Amino acid sequence: MSDPLRLGIAGLGTVGVGVVRIIRQQAALLEARTGRKITISAVSARTKGRDRGVALDSYAWEDDPVALATRDDVDVFVELMGGEDGPAKDATEAALKAGKHVVTANKAMLAIHGQALAEQAEAKGLALRYEAAVAGGIPVVKTLMEGLAGNEITRVMGVMNGSCNYILTRMENSGATYQEIFAEADGLGYLEADPQLDVGGIDAAHKLAILSAIAFGTRVDFDGIQLEGIERVSIEDIRAAADMGYKIKLLGVAQKTGRGLEQRMQPCLVPDSSPLAQLDGGTNMVVLEGDAVGKIVLRGAGAGEGPTASAVMADICDIARGLRGPVFGQPAVGLVNSTAALTKLPAPYYLRLALVDKPGALAKIATVLGEAGVSIDRMRQYGHDNSSAPVLIVTHKTTQSDIETALAAMDDTGVMAGPPVALRIEEV
Amino acid sequence: MSDPLRLGIAGLGTVGVGVVRIIRQQAALLEARTGRKITISAVSARTKGRDRGVALDSYAWEDDPVALATRDDVDVFVELMGGEDGPAKDATEAALKAGKHVVTANKAMLAIHGQALAEQAEAKGLALRYEAAVAGGIPVVKTLMEGLAGNEITRVMGVMNGSCNYILTRMENSGATYQEIFAEADGLGYLEADPQLDVGGIDAAHKLAILSAIAFGTRVDFDGIQLEGIERVSIEDIRAAADMGYKIKLLGVAQKTGRGLEQRMQPCLVPDSSPLAQLDGGTNMVVLEGDAVGKIVLRGAGAGEGPTASAVMADICDIARGLRGPVFGQPAVGLVNSTAALTKLPAPYYLRLALVDKPGALAKIATVLGEAGVSIDRMRQYGHDNSSAPVLIVTHKTTQSDIETALAAMDDTGVMAGPPVALRIEEV
Repeated sequence: MSDPLRLGIAGLGTVGVGVVRIIRQQAALLEARTGRKITISAVSARTKGRDRGVALDSYAWEDDPVALATRDDVDVFVELMGGEDGPAKDATEAALKAGKHVVTANKAMLAIHGQALAEQAEAKGLALRYEAAVAGGIPVVKTLMEGLAGNEITRVMGVMNGSCNYILTRMENSGATYQEIFAEADGLGYLEADPQLDVGGIDAAHKLAILSAIAFGTRVDFDGIQLEGIERVSIEDIRAAADMGYKIKLLGVAQKTGRGLEQRMQPCLVPDSSPLAQLDGGTNMVVLEGDAVGKIVLRGAGAGEGPTASAVMADICDIARGLRGPVFGQPAVGLVNSTAALTKLPAPYYLRLALVDKPGALAKIATVLGEAGVSIDRMRQYGHDNSSAPVLIVTHKTTQSDIETALAAMDDTGVMAGPPVALRIEEV
Repeated sequence: MSDPLRLGIAGLGTVGVGVVRIIRQQAALLEARTGRKITISAVSARTKGRDRGVALDSYAWEDDPVALATRDDVDVFVELMGGEDGPAKDATEAALKAGKHVVTANKAMLAIHGQALAEQAEAKGLALRYEAAVAGGIPVVKTLMEGLAGNEITRVMGVMNGSCNYILTRMENSGATYQEIFAEADGLGYLEADPQLDVGGIDAAHKLAILSAIAFGTRVDFDGIQLEGIERVSIEDIRAAADMGYKIKLLGVAQKTGRGLEQRMQPCLVPDSSPLAQLDGGTNMVVLEGDAVGKIVLRGAGAGEGPTASAVMADICDIARGLRGPVFGQPAVGLVNSTAALTKLPAPYYLRLALVDKPGALAKIATVLGEAGVSIDRMRQYGHDNSSAPVLIVTHKTTQSDIETALAAMDDTGVMAGPPVALRIEEV
């Protein structure tokens, strides 16, 4: 039997407490599975003494996470504080410098500083693992990096922010507006302290940037993501999309194209028959496509104490078993910057237009679309709503720039009763 | 850079050729990901010289897989011949004896001889890996053993035989009988040489036995599986189930109950809304439930050159990276026999009964059910079909033995126009 693996855990929120609980309750099982005892030497959090529902007396306490990370009796620094900079980054760097392995759930830190941290860890042969940073309990990092290691990955996509998915599915089921459901979700504590991280798509984009680096062997490139949140998704669009056989999801897509790496996080329409369309509430789903394996779909809880702690434990167990290996699946020093694809792959688009109630209005719009090279696949016109006539259009595959050209030209037709809505349709 | 990892591949059918192809085409990628060159030293198959669509000239040829497995220039023996005994087992044992790691796709061999092979491998510190043995391209072994290592697994279930799922979904979509679609699938080469392995549920049960051992830390117990194939699933039942909001799937379930380990592989009804119900054709799906993570659903191709070769490559890459570890997730010598649960957990049941067209027939059946302690949730009686009246019943949760008591008693009522059908409903 090897020596115990000794942890120092910084951050005792939901996830930290979940990790402590598993280590206490499943000690025998963890030892049987890893061949080592897994113990906690010390913990750290902002407030000492608060009742967290789990006994912490037997662990040393450190006010300063850097002090925790560098303790002699710590083999693995478990970073569960969050935040791309500040204490999380300071303590992670200190831990690596002191020769400690690191397990973190911090997607923001990895999306922004992942390359530097990976180089630091690999230079010393240390593990820096982050299963919990992406899609909560779903072991997607492991699946992509190890389970599909024989594949050239062609596309990664997914619904990876449970709060956004909750808001969109609640809107759909209740018929309430974005503002109403946002307030509800906020009241239930489903949103980050800065809700923009959720509804602005930033949190999901952090995750996508990490997966993208693993998938394509490039440096993490958060800034290369075309990013749009869910704030402008209206209940009218959810209803209209449903009527045309689609659901609206905040969908992340990363794929290599002839023009470079395309990374997008934006509200998209997906066909009702797609597995992504079945996703309710806080559930996450990731679709991984490889040249050999085809399409692998993973689904599970994207957040919460148990699922996230489960992912942290998987990393700890891997380290206990001796797994090291490069942080993003290939040696970090060899990773190159991706060339961001400026032109996105063509796709069908959904358009919702409010036209003034005048003869010839629709003909003008059709002309504008045709002139921009956008061809119409399906169209529905609804009964007049006061003085404007709502029109829904599903286009054939077209480019984002052609759509933008068409939308700009619509402005000059004089037949628009309001701003047009255009959403990409992702055929999953 | 470490030494190359040198393979000996026995079996050059679809999967073997797929593995050779990936190693040739993705050499640089594999080296970047594992830090080692992966090379093929020698291959073996029943027939030399056949054109397999991939160049094999640069590899040594062995007629005898045992000779291949023990070659000095082989580090990893890749067993892709299949069959629970015979050459596959002989060569695997010889490889382990000679100190070679083994990667296999052979579910039958592992389900029957897994314990002995695991003990042999672990005694020498060798890897024996088998991702391709379960659910094709889906990395379910890795997910269960590593990704969910922090969980006490509570249930494993899945649709793990693509041929059966093809037959059932084709019946549903075409309205044709089991016999018609069986003949079609056989003609298309979708079935094993011995089709009973597929339609009898044996192949799927092999996979379940393996997952069950990993999940619950018990010895592989293929004989402990309650096994029933799809041969008696009729098109009438598929139609009737659809009418009541269900689909019929060959579903494997393994779970720990108060009475021991329950392992079943049988046709079950699953609600239309379940992810399992969405599965078409050859796709596989596995649902893993853990105390911390909740429910994780994995979906992908269950067979075929690319997906299966992808799983074989994941194992090879893991070995290249230095992963060893116990074969079933815990040291094999410490694994205990599971106590097979003799009484299965209660479940709702679907019953299809053909009653003679006489007054009071239904009352007699209802009485028999009541006396056996089976209570009715929903019932539908259809228009008379010649002289018999089809009746569909969905019961409340009940035990298999109560259902069996009721079915036996129905025989004596004199109102049955044919044998009753009873299928378990799995609320997934």
